[in-house]
Amino acid sequence: MIHIPPRQQAGTAGKAGSQFTGVAFPYVTMAATDGVVINTVDFTPGARTHWHSHEDGQILQVLAGRGLVQSEGGPVVILRAGDTVWVPPGERHWHGAAPDSFMVHTAISLGETTWDAPVAEEEYRAKAEENER
Amino acid sequence: MIHIPPRQQAGTAGKAGSQFTGVAFPYVTMAATDGVVINTVDFTPGARTHWHSHEDGQILQVLAGRGLVQSEGGPVVILRAGDTVWVPPGERHWHGAAPDSFMVHTAISLGETTWDAPVAEEEYRAKAEENER
Repeated sequence: MIHIPPRQQAGTAGKAGSQFTGVAFPYVTMAATDGVVINTVDFTPGARTHWHSHEDGQILQVLAGRGLVQSEGGPVVILRAGDTVWVPPGERHWHGAAPDSFMVHTAISLGETTWDAPVAEEEYRAKAEENER
Repeated sequence: MIHIPPRQQAGTAGKAGSQFTGVAFPYVTMAATDGVVINTVDFTPGARTHWHSHEDGQILQVLAGRGLVQSEGGPVVILRAGDTVWVPPGERHWHGAAPDSFMVHTAISLGETTWDAPVAEEEYRAKAEENER
């Protein structure tokens, strides 16, 4: 068992690199362990990941702010605090903040991540859907 | 992608059954999907799971209260809000509230869960370790 109290999580915050558009700050809760990675990420307004997929899927848990998520071929969906998202194995998708709000989520990524192209401005700005809550 | 806003999570709360000692309330955030189950569980003081293991491991995220976790052959470790725990595939363990506090955690279980015997009172009452935080 690996027990990670808050102090051990806090030493690893940094600025997200080339797989993001805009400014985002990841906070590594658990570095890759048995194929599982846990990152809490603060996306500043307008920031988002590139298109990508996870070999064994991904869980997003939205903690604060308002964000966006889209899977390939589907609508852009608005994310709010309390939302959970399951992205199935291999499904190409992106996630990030709304244009006018930050968004903080915990991302639990299973298996290898495959990175792809940036999300184009017109994709990012497409009309977003609000689900019932 | 499966998007689960809070309202869709709230319909499934119930009382934990025969795989627990004491009174605990699970709140099913996501029922089994592609081998992944997400439960937020409120353990009342003294409540804990039976010994069990997960085929592909388990992530615990402690949201509130004070709890306990133990893997087979290891110490009983005190859990507090903000802690994350990774239990590797197949590792026999249990988790729950402290004797004098409730504990709420989100449990993300990967693959099949194998249930075993209840945690004996003397196991549960063993001296617990406080990690740095």
